[in-house]
Amino acid sequence: MSKEQEVFTDSELAYLAGQRLGRLATVSSSGALQNNPVGFWVNAELGTIDIFGLNLAKSKKYRNVKGNPKVAFVVDDLASVDPWVVRGVEVRGLAEALEPVAPPIAHMSHQVIRVHPRRIISWGVDPGSLGMSGRDVAAGTNEAA
Amino acid sequence: MSKEQEVFTDSELAYLAGQRLGRLATVSSSGALQNNPVGFWVNAELGTIDIFGLNLAKSKKYRNVKGNPKVAFVVDDLASVDPWVVRGVEVRGLAEALEPVAPPIAHMSHQVIRVHPRRIISWGVDPGSLGMSGRDVAAGTNEAA
Repeated sequence: MSKEQEVFTDSELAYLAGQRLGRLATVSSSGALQNNPVGFWVNAELGTIDIFGLNLAKSKKYRNVKGNPKVAFVVDDLASVDPWVVRGVEVRGLAEALEPVAPPIAHMSHQVIRVHPRRIISWGVDPGSLGMSGRDVAAGTNEAA
Repeated sequence: MSKEQEVFTDSELAYLAGQRLGRLATVSSSGALQNNPVGFWVNAELGTIDIFGLNLAKSKKYRNVKGNPKVAFVVDDLASVDPWVVRGVEVRGLAEALEPVAPPIAHMSHQVIRVHPRRIISWGVDPGSLGMSGRDVAAGTNEAA
């Protein structure tokens, strides 16, 4: 079983693979909160969510993570308007701001925000289960942040 | 000029009117962070973002706002994949958890999370301006939280 399969369910991985944007909430060391749309990659080897960018080192979210590792990352979409059905995966965890790291796309910068899940909540992504399901992820399951 | 026009630009209002889902980041009084997809309404009279729900009083985000008013709310979408163009509006501010409040849709519960913008950052929503623009919103511009 791969690391990503230890952390995420097959339904969550399939859902994440089909979505392009997530939103990353970060908090500065002084407690200021922000919420930013980001592209993301599921790191199969580590069981993390990896966020790269064009000039990531200069971003406030990267500096926030350096000062305060707590993050909440969500990927969701509106499956139906009537009835109103939202589905998605929320990952709460601890993030690292790392460099140098080779980016997945050549023109991206050599930093990553690497999110280590500590709690995963998903809803509507598993055809076999209705409603919301949440579970804790043990610190040993993915590389410690 | 309406309250919403004092707080948001015409381009931001037009963009928000065309989007259905936003994401609300909240923090509990103990510092736990979460990020949730939500439907939203721009309150034209107050210049706030109003968030209702089916059972809002029971939600963790509602309790979070009661304990800690700081929130970051973002509405965004992917305008183009190649080139990669994300556009959106982020609202950082102070929220109130209020009840009883008449909901905009009959079956919703009688609570609201009312976000009073203190800083608005937008990118790609104004055809006349490229890049990101951010501005502070004075506390007097919308009803104090």
